[in-house]
Amino acid sequence: MSKQQDTSKLWGGRFSEPTDSFVQRFTASVDFDQRMAAEDIAGSLAHANMLCAVGVLSEDELGQIQAGLATVQREIDDGTFAWSVELEDVHMNIEARLTELIGVTGKKLHTGRSRNDQVATDIRLYLRAAIDQIATELTRLQEGTIALAAENTDTIMPGFTHLQTAQPVSFGHHLLAWNEMLERDHGRLMDCRARMNQSPLGAAALAGTTYPIDREQTAAALGFDKPTENSLDSVSDRDFAIEFCAFASLLMTHLSRMSEELVIWTSAQFNFIELPDRFCTGSSIMPQKKNPDVPELVRGKVGRVNGHLISLLTLMKSQPLAYNKDNQEDKEPLFDTVDTVLDCLRAFADMVPAIKPRAQQMREAARSGFSTATDLADYLVGLGLPFRDAHEVVGKAVAHGVETGLDLAEMELATLQGFCPDIGEDVFEVLTLEGSISARDHLGGTAPNQVAAAARRARERLQSR
Amino acid sequence: MSKQQDTSKLWGGRFSEPTDSFVQRFTASVDFDQRMAAEDIAGSLAHANMLCAVGVLSEDELGQIQAGLATVQREIDDGTFAWSVELEDVHMNIEARLTELIGVTGKKLHTGRSRNDQVATDIRLYLRAAIDQIATELTRLQEGTIALAAENTDTIMPGFTHLQTAQPVSFGHHLLAWNEMLERDHGRLMDCRARMNQSPLGAAALAGTTYPIDREQTAAALGFDKPTENSLDSVSDRDFAIEFCAFASLLMTHLSRMSEELVIWTSAQFNFIELPDRFCTGSSIMPQKKNPDVPELVRGKVGRVNGHLISLLTLMKSQPLAYNKDNQEDKEPLFDTVDTVLDCLRAFADMVPAIKPRAQQMREAARSGFSTATDLADYLVGLGLPFRDAHEVVGKAVAHGVETGLDLAEMELATLQGFCPDIGEDVFEVLTLEGSISARDHLGGTAPNQVAAAARRARERLQSR
Amino acid sequence: MSKQQDTSKLWGGRFSEPTDSFVQRFTASVDFDQRMAAEDIAGSLAHANMLCAVGVLSEDELGQIQAGLATVQREIDDGTFAWSVELEDVHMNIEARLTELIGVTGKKLHTGRSRNDQVATDIRLYLRAAIDQIATELTRLQEGTIALAAENTDTIMPGFTHLQTAQPVSFGHHLLAWNEMLERDHGRLMDCRARMNQSPLGAAALAGTTYPIDREQTAAALGFDKPTENSLDSVSDRDFAIEFCAFASLLMTHLSRMSEELVIWTSAQFNFIELPDRFCTGSSIMPQKKNPDVPELVRGKVGRVNGHLISLLTLMKSQPLAYNKDNQEDKEPLFDTVDTVLDCLRAFADMVPAIKPRAQQMREAARSGFSTATDLADYLVGLGLPFRDAHEVVGKAVAHGVETGLDLAEMELATLQGFCPDIGEDVFEVLTLEGSISARDHLGGTAPNQVAAAARRARERLQSR
Amino acid sequence: MSKQQDTSKLWGGRFSEPTDSFVQRFTASVDFDQRMAAEDIAGSLAHANMLCAVGVLSEDELGQIQAGLATVQREIDDGTFAWSVELEDVHMNIEARLTELIGVTGKKLHTGRSRNDQVATDIRLYLRAAIDQIATELTRLQEGTIALAAENTDTIMPGFTHLQTAQPVSFGHHLLAWNEMLERDHGRLMDCRARMNQSPLGAAALAGTTYPIDREQTAAALGFDKPTENSLDSVSDRDFAIEFCAFASLLMTHLSRMSEELVIWTSAQFNFIELPDRFCTGSSIMPQKKNPDVPELVRGKVGRVNGHLISLLTLMKSQPLAYNKDNQEDKEPLFDTVDTVLDCLRAFADMVPAIKPRAQQMREAARSGFSTATDLADYLVGLGLPFRDAHEVVGKAVAHGVETGLDLAEMELATLQGFCPDIGEDVFEVLTLEGSISARDHLGGTAPNQVAAAARRARERLQSR
Repeated sequence: MSKQQDTSKLWGGRFSEPTDSFVQRFTASVDFDQRMAAEDIAGSLAHANMLCAVGVLSEDELGQIQAGLATVQREIDDGTFAWSVELEDVHMNIEARLTELIGVTGKKLHTGRSRNDQVATDIRLYLRAAIDQIATELTRLQEGTIALAAENTDTIMPGFTHLQTAQPVSFGHHLLAWNEMLERDHGRLMDCRARMNQSPLGAAALAGTTYPIDREQTAAALGFDKPTENSLDSVSDRDFAIEFCAFASLLMTHLSRMSEELVIWTSAQFNFIELPDRFCTGSSIMPQKKNPDVPELVRGKVGRVNGHLISLLTLMKSQPLAYNKDNQEDKEPLFDTVDTVLDCLRAFADMVPAIKPRAQQMREAARSGFSTATDLADYLVGLGLPFRDAHEVVGKAVAHGVETGLDLAEMELATLQGFCPDIGEDVFEVLTLEGSISARDHLGGTAPNQVAAAARRARERLQSR
Repeated sequence: MSKQQDTSKLWGGRFSEPTDSFVQRFTASVDFDQRMAAEDIAGSLAHANMLCAVGVLSEDELGQIQAGLATVQREIDDGTFAWSVELEDVHMNIEARLTELIGVTGKKLHTGRSRNDQVATDIRLYLRAAIDQIATELTRLQEGTIALAAENTDTIMPGFTHLQTAQPVSFGHHLLAWNEMLERDHGRLMDCRARMNQSPLGAAALAGTTYPIDREQTAAALGFDKPTENSLDSVSDRDFAIEFCAFASLLMTHLSRMSEELVIWTSAQFNFIELPDRFCTGSSIMPQKKNPDVPELVRGKVGRVNGHLISLLTLMKSQPLAYNKDNQEDKEPLFDTVDTVLDCLRAFADMVPAIKPRAQQMREAARSGFSTATDLADYLVGLGLPFRDAHEVVGKAVAHGVETGLDLAEMELATLQGFCPDIGEDVFEVLTLEGSISARDHLGGTAPNQVAAAARRARERLQSR
Repeated sequence: MSKQQDTSKLWGGRFSEPTDSFVQRFTASVDFDQRMAAEDIAGSLAHANMLCAVGVLSEDELGQIQAGLATVQREIDDGTFAWSVELEDVHMNIEARLTELIGVTGKKLHTGRSRNDQVATDIRLYLRAAIDQIATELTRLQEGTIALAAENTDTIMPGFTHLQTAQPVSFGHHLLAWNEMLERDHGRLMDCRARMNQSPLGAAALAGTTYPIDREQTAAALGFDKPTENSLDSVSDRDFAIEFCAFASLLMTHLSRMSEELVIWTSAQFNFIELPDRFCTGSSIMPQKKNPDVPELVRGKVGRVNGHLISLLTLMKSQPLAYNKDNQEDKEPLFDTVDTVLDCLRAFADMVPAIKPRAQQMREAARSGFSTATDLADYLVGLGLPFRDAHEVVGKAVAHGVETGLDLAEMELATLQGFCPDIGEDVFEVLTLEGSISARDHLGGTAPNQVAAAARRARERLQSR
Repeated sequence: MSKQQDTSKLWGGRFSEPTDSFVQRFTASVDFDQRMAAEDIAGSLAHANMLCAVGVLSEDELGQIQAGLATVQREIDDGTFAWSVELEDVHMNIEARLTELIGVTGKKLHTGRSRNDQVATDIRLYLRAAIDQIATELTRLQEGTIALAAENTDTIMPGFTHLQTAQPVSFGHHLLAWNEMLERDHGRLMDCRARMNQSPLGAAALAGTTYPIDREQTAAALGFDKPTENSLDSVSDRDFAIEFCAFASLLMTHLSRMSEELVIWTSAQFNFIELPDRFCTGSSIMPQKKNPDVPELVRGKVGRVNGHLISLLTLMKSQPLAYNKDNQEDKEPLFDTVDTVLDCLRAFADMVPAIKPRAQQMREAARSGFSTATDLADYLVGLGLPFRDAHEVVGKAVAHGVETGLDLAEMELATLQGFCPDIGEDVFEVLTLEGSISARDHLGGTAPNQVAAAARRARERLQSR
């Protein structure tokens, strides 16, 4: 065993005793970084091609490396690759196997690079692919949201502030508010992608390398916009992971807000919507239950992602340059954030289009909660009262309504005139729900024609991505 | 008192008992939101102008409001304005004083808006101005950093990984790594600014308003790129505050890393730099101390900003739409983040150009730590050894050096040949510090000419802002 | 000015240029640490008494110091004390004024101590007093909660899981669940107090002092249980602040859960309770609104406290011993946490006893949501069915109820027998709300007699504090 | 497949369509909660025994269940148990297999309980066992720390504040500061254990059960101190997980501080200690490197644990009672925190006793940094100068030393007298390192005899655990 270690530990020359076996497991990352095997191989191929182009590797050596790496990739795909904790990480595992396969040429692959720039390259490639998948799911969720909104431009529900009935709004308008949140999330995601898409390969350990490498070539081969500017920064920078997690925290915060609304709306007391059974589960003890599990779970998962964000910020706090072992802790939070975001988006993209609004229940809730009180105030302003005085008049009418159980539209004209003698018969027009929402007829307002136009604009933005 | 409350509480009509006085203080925000008074007045002026343009206010009423608000602004500037907790917030305080000054017309100012869109507008205006100030200080810090780097392209220091001597680098190269971090911070700040610069004014309480408002006009008057798309989203969105705090957490993380290095470098053991006395303080008990207080304090302040980020994310978690009172908690973390970032940037922008490198100490540290071991390995590769084998040879030479106290450049040729017989006299060229850094001569490498070019490019990026 | 600085800067001897004025403000703490003036003076008095007892100060000197500090305290109480940013912190401000008042003897007070142990002592004294105030408010809230529970042992409401009606519970039982959370909070608070109540005074800068101090005497005089064990730890330890903030985060989490329930329960759709007007506020635009501001604001404030916890944890991450300037950042998060917790507890302790349950609404909600489905399953098990089979039978009955709009108790016997022929007339007894809650008659169950007994035990625990 | 689902989904009666297969995976927890299988079986056995004692199960049924569960446990231990995502969680998997093994009696096991109290019981059992393991490792680390301290009571090193040389301290004293941190951690861990060790079993879904259960019996059988007081709280409470994570964050913060010191001390510039090779790793590119990987990695892992704490606090924020699906997110952060803490403690408990101080290096660093400046000030006070004046004199002497490169003990008497004519020959006694540390001879001070006594007391505290 110790003999094997002597050869397998690629940095063993200076050391007089083998790594403690617990320490070996404790410091190894292969259990989680093997997820980046494909990116590691892609990076190695780009590096090898470049080394050949600049004359460090011969064509023949390059051919051997290409063939060897293809075999390694196949073994990984097949599940026949033997991952070893003793070889620490994905990079060492792949290189060791390559050398086993093709001999001494395998050892030449590492010329002019270090694990420090190698891992930085792998993570960026991995994250870039994840971002593209996430963007696709996010767009799908937005499409479903906008489509449901477009079908419900004139479905009336109570708009809430403080979870108290405020003013009637269109359900479509509410859904488009969700879409605005998601639209900003997409913008942040794209900004993150643009900023991270630079190649650290060639930074080597921290200072660059003495070999005549061509960083432009490897950057282009790997789809990066350009090489990074500074080698020390390249191996120590984890901004992209933090910026991505900050994006994810905001996205998950938005999904948690939607989830909260779905949970409240599916309560027996609100009963505003129905979620299909396939997004719900039941109870092992209460046979009547239909629990909105998917929104609840998504709501819970915001904690996980906020936690990962703090984890990474704490990790990087006051680390001196350049690379420190601490940075090995960057991967698990990042990977779990990617998984969580993808799963939650997929669940929502499937679920949102399947939401069934209960229009009658929503309408009834809007009708009975003095939701047109502001319209009455505006009517009084039209009669010449200052807004603040109109507000006070309506306040008294509402207090009367609370006592008598009558909504404003249900009061006698004489009763209303008791609060302000100038009120006329035409007041009842502004007190209808349709009158109320149609009157908010400006950009961003809840009037059905505005909502329809907003849905069109929203869809166009998606199409121009 | 209760009489005064009846008139001062602008929403009092519906209520039968006055707010508890403790509750009044507990729920009031005027102590901290008065900071946005100038923005509140600017927003009111834009709103009043628009109300006049669309015919809701007469020219005469507009004139009165303009004059009244000018008086209010003057009173605030003078410190004669009487802020009142009973009036809850900056909006109510200003409006009440306006009405006191100009009578009933003052009450008309609130036509077609609500405190919900008003506060959203105020915060965005406030934050936008803060962002512009921060960008200025950030640019100043970058200028100072780049200038110091340009003076030190060939000042040699040990580059560290794991705080162990790794390879020699140029001090200028190290400083440019700092600049890369700051450059990304600037990019994030500008992205945040671009995304937030939309006007929520006109969203009213949550659904828009029945008045014929012109949101394009107010948006333009206030320097916003355009009005927001959705009224519900406009009053509930606090993404911009979170995105800004995420920017700030990353920036402060970077400053904490620089601070850590400054603290380590000023220790007696490293002694790499000198900080001018004016950025340090002494000890009340130990007369010999010169403590790097400014970097230490900045390092500590990353905690504060990370805390504010979590504070805001927690605040927004699972809030249903649209506005909830919880959101009053958005301001203090945001304001303190702005103050902290501005102060820390100012301190660093003043301090960094005043850093005095101790070139001799740095050089000595680089010379004595086997920092050219990689160069020896590369030399061996040049002789035909696979990199991994070269690595092992050098490892043994270093182990010998640790035992004997000799650096590689100090060993006899014969000793070196003991590890690999092919080594020739020319090896000593690659073992010099100058040879080592000059050999890393590619984009992003530490060769002095590369560092000089990088400094030029960095400065050009600043100039094109 | 620079002359004044020479004398006022108590560590000036070593320095050749004055502190930059911005740096002076940036690094000063007097704006926030003056809050600990009374504790600072108490600590100084204990220290001076001890110095006299061990012979370092004469009786006469002690007398002068006592008189001088009394004057300082009076000036602070009067508001006539002139705080100066140039004197950095509360300690220097008080000592400088003391020396102004009594001359050279004032300078002797600092013998055998350092600001490092002085500030550590001050914060502990401050926090201990805050803990005692918090414990009082927490107990008051618990008393109010238990009293309301005792009045509502048989007020029936739907118990929720997943915000779906699950089983009927007593409102008193629900309130006692709140009390259990608060009871644990009290336990954590007392554990924190016990652990922190040790005196760091005498640790001096970091290593102790050469004077023959008596740490037992100062510890006893200041009400500490004993002196701390290790001087390095004493000046670097901020565990107590973090442990306190962790307590506070959990307490605020609990208050946020209660707040969420209050907000949901005051919605028009639930309408389970009424909050007195004095804990609510209205809307500037919607006259009908009565917003549950106090619970919303408390819910929002959990973010603030979680933020402070992270702030302190980040602050202490990887700080080498002993004292670093970073630690100046410990105070503001701690102070704000104390204020926030005290305010929120006070608001809740005032509000909870004033909650008015709407028993009829609660009962109706329980009646109509299949809340006794589990009771039917249990009845079937009594007839011999395995629980899982009974569960399935009831599931089908509920599905029928959803379709037909009938609750289980409203179905015909024949209908029920259609799902399981063995059901008898006696089934209707177990389907009543009273039957359901009374049947859960064991320790911790919702049967009214169990709830009454639990309330008694809860009150006894409070009394034995 | 759908047939299998009908029988396997234990709550399927009410549902008309099967769970979406993605949703099934998304909402299942069996991948991570199978870790609690042993606890789940222990809980089931206690529950079954109790059901038999109160007459709900016959002796024969109990026997079958016991035998069946023994088989299940064996299959799990063997790795032959077939875990199924369709069966959602560990509870359902085990119960379904039990029923497969013993038939209809298996279904009776769930009588009088719910997954809500079952999972709450399982987590507490799991966490309690983890706490006991952690306490063992923590004690082991403390033993090693104290032993090393006891060997180094008079090994002199510079004590630092602001990473600047402050005063000489004993290395043993420094190590005992570490031990104080760990001692408080142990106290918090034990408080957490005491508070959580109550049995939620019997709370059922949320309200208790109609079966005549004996909660005292199951509590006792499972080693709990007593049953919990309130059923709603029992199923919704996750305080114990948060309190544990808060303990863990503080512990990890302490380990991060020790790690930071180890990293700094192993730098070439400090060179205060040697870490055995087995706790270090090398570099793939720089053959000379010996990186302190273990402390670096531990330092990084504080981020992970702080993240989990925030994750759980965010999770519980504003959740209404009683159980919500969100809570499924409690396990992964908790499990990972347990694993991380155990691994880090183990690594430190192995490593700390193997730390080799380089006494000569430490001594030299203490000697050359003006570390006895405070002693000179104290000497001057002994001559009658007020402390603040003495401080200024020494400050000037140090400034002279900085200029001339001489430490205080190296200056001529005449030179010293130039700063204060009263200085005598005896000053050189107090300027020695031994004199300095021996003079701090009081409880908590760094005098070797005090350190030895402190080590004895520390060891006694461990022994009395």
